[in-house]
Amino acid sequence: MSTALPALPTLPSVVAFGGGHGLSASLSALRRVTDKLAAVVTVADDGGSSGRLRAELDCLPPGDLRMALAALCGDDESGRTWAEVLQYRFASDGDLNGHAIGNLLIAGVWARLGDPVAGLDLVARLLGAKGRVLPMAAVPLEIEADVIGLDAAHPDETGLVRGQAAVATTTGQVSAVRLTPSDPPACPESVAVVEAADWVVLGPGSWFTSVIPHLLVPELADAILATKARRLLTLNIGYDGETHGFSAARHLELLAEHAPCLRLDVVLADSAFAADDPHLSAYASSLGAELVVADLAVRDGTPRHDPLRLASAYAEIMGIPG
Amino acid sequence: MSTALPALPTLPSVVAFGGGHGLSASLSALRRVTDKLAAVVTVADDGGSSGRLRAELDCLPPGDLRMALAALCGDDESGRTWAEVLQYRFASDGDLNGHAIGNLLIAGVWARLGDPVAGLDLVARLLGAKGRVLPMAAVPLEIEADVIGLDAAHPDETGLVRGQAAVATTTGQVSAVRLTPSDPPACPESVAVVEAADWVVLGPGSWFTSVIPHLLVPELADAILATKARRLLTLNIGYDGETHGFSAARHLELLAEHAPCLRLDVVLADSAFAADDPHLSAYASSLGAELVVADLAVRDGTPRHDPLRLASAYAEIMGIPG
Repeated sequence: MSTALPALPTLPSVVAFGGGHGLSASLSALRRVTDKLAAVVTVADDGGSSGRLRAELDCLPPGDLRMALAALCGDDESGRTWAEVLQYRFASDGDLNGHAIGNLLIAGVWARLGDPVAGLDLVARLLGAKGRVLPMAAVPLEIEADVIGLDAAHPDETGLVRGQAAVATTTGQVSAVRLTPSDPPACPESVAVVEAADWVVLGPGSWFTSVIPHLLVPELADAILATKARRLLTLNIGYDGETHGFSAARHLELLAEHAPCLRLDVVLADSAFAADDPHLSAYASSLGAELVVADLAVRDGTPRHDPLRLASAYAEIMGIPG
Repeated sequence: MSTALPALPTLPSVVAFGGGHGLSASLSALRRVTDKLAAVVTVADDGGSSGRLRAELDCLPPGDLRMALAALCGDDESGRTWAEVLQYRFASDGDLNGHAIGNLLIAGVWARLGDPVAGLDLVARLLGAKGRVLPMAAVPLEIEADVIGLDAAHPDETGLVRGQAAVATTTGQVSAVRLTPSDPPACPESVAVVEAADWVVLGPGSWFTSVIPHLLVPELADAILATKARRLLTLNIGYDGETHGFSAARHLELLAEHAPCLRLDVVLADSAFAADDPHLSAYASSLGAELVVADLAVRDGTPRHDPLRLASAYAEIMGIPG
């Protein structure tokens, strides 16, 4: 029966940046608060299944895109099942060992269609994903980092570490990251969704390999600076491996060092992490941002965002009625 | 709006046996005439992507099951797209070369669930397949064949050819096929659908590697002989590679040689193929079957069944209102 429904409030258009588990947390929360959601995802992974597929098929590394698609699968049985199938990895003594099914599905659709964005849109539609997943750049990228203390004999010296997998697992202290090529073409659709967004959300995630890289793609960084959207940065729950020992404010400082013109509207921090750093509020203000503090962690004590707590914080910040 | 619909005629429950392209043709037709459809599929393939997956993951060969699932995808855009994605094969210089996406998806779900039937049911549900796809046996099988004329110097001698891929491509003349193990456990769900069917449909397909093997799985053959369902055999449009030069009646004779107790209700033949063999009707009668002749081939002259022509013949034979 066709019945006129009461007008629903218009939900904001949100673009979430990131990669890996941090972006999954962000999307798992955001898909609960808006139906206009796009993820813009790092494409510099060179490790594991993604690294092998990228080398064999000369494609974008699919892993972070797969995780984003899995996070956008719905909460019904079909959605949960698809998410699990996408994430499942072969375990064998042979060629397939370690490959995630979703990586193979995405890479196969890319090979068939020859267009990464059309392929991701197709997979998202087939899965019934609650939003769009886009790559941050149109070509596969490399990350390289300046790292202090690589050599135990010279703990103050800075060395160069190449490759996302190596940067993410270095035992030294990362001070800066760069992309190779340094001026990659952005994905035009990613630029377009940023320009049209009401909110852009940076973080949480591995700071050097999932959060900062978006700001190093010139056209995408320009779009993030120029968009009329409000800019929200979500800090991690605690220290990821890449920023161990860095204060909350130091995370903001690193962002500013890599994107000096960046201004933020809101910095969202978990209460425990924020409580550790008396300078956080002042540093957020220096970037133009209001600091919002809330209990965001899962209740079992692991340093992960709880999707519903994060959703609740996003809804309040974005003024979305419950 | 919930409105009482007029009662629809009850459609027959149909089980189609086969493998490869022949079974695809059968399913593409049958899904248009009934909504109670199951495919029971050969699991002896040892070539190509299926052979490699079977060797690496110790699973059933997924290829023929994948083709059946693709044939059961619907005619809407999502169905057509899924079918194409399942069938797409990687082309690379590396490990993935030649693997069909659908094979990897099925093998991955099997690895995750540990149960081939539950895995196939899950994939079918995810794809929105118009029927169920089941393996004919619970374990991977080998086919071996007696083949005449393998050695050009002794053209009348019979030799042994091992492996489905080798049998399907032998240059000699196959006279008999066997399974290894010779008494494999049937898939219980396959036996159950045969017992509950209104119609079972054998053929079309590669005669020795896709049509006859089902009759060599003892529990499945027993179920085919004992079921109250009517038994329909669809002959090929022309000669497949395995039966080149065999008359239409010789095809029936081969079936009877491998399953001496088999009785049929209907033999369906394309008019051109039937016209070549004046003995076909008598031979069909000797197996208890009425011969039905119709134009079944695609109009472009290639030796393939046209799905709509085949559907029309099935509907008429099964008494399904148009």
